[in-house]
Amino acid sequence: MTDKKKNKLEVEIYNKTYTIIGDETEQHVKLVASLVDQKMNEIHHHNKHLDSSKLAVLTAVNTMNDYLKLKEDYAKFLGSINRKEEK
Amino acid sequence: MTDKKKNKLEVEIYNKTYTIIGDETEQHVKLVASLVDQKMNEIHHHNKHLDSSKLAVLTAVNTMNDYLKLKEDYAKFLGSINRKEEK
Repeated sequence: MTDKKKNKLEVEIYNKTYTIIGDETEQHVKLVASLVDQKMNEIHHHNKHLDSSKLAVLTAVNTMNDYLKLKEDYAKFLGSINRKEEK
Repeated sequence: MTDKKKNKLEVEIYNKTYTIIGDETEQHVKLVASLVDQKMNEIHHHNKHLDSSKLAVLTAVNTMNDYLKLKEDYAKFLGSINRKEEK
């Protein structure tokens, strides 16, 4: 195991400040935060009545949906590669 | 284009009910909701002082992080496949 130093970084998402602690680079954490902020603003634009808590949950739902779709695509692609190699 | 009927489904995430409208199957929407609910409970377990809005934002951040990592893995894999084919 490597002796990795944890990074601690403050980011702003949807007008609130969050402290993110982890092994990721500052650049990566900032990218993640800006994508979440962007998605929250997009969802707010289409659902102006939602409180910030429900808005954040729907942002998580939306991101989880993207994650699962990408995972399925990846799995299908791996499947097709394996079938090719078997031929 | 196909004439897809939008599905409307109620799901429960972290003790609140959400109406999800989309093209996804009921099974897929329920899976997404249960994964978000599970992640929120995990993050709550480690950060009991967080209000539900901040908890949901951190769940979105966590999921976005997973999404980007998977995307990078996929891109690297595609890159390695392309290099193999060029040889």
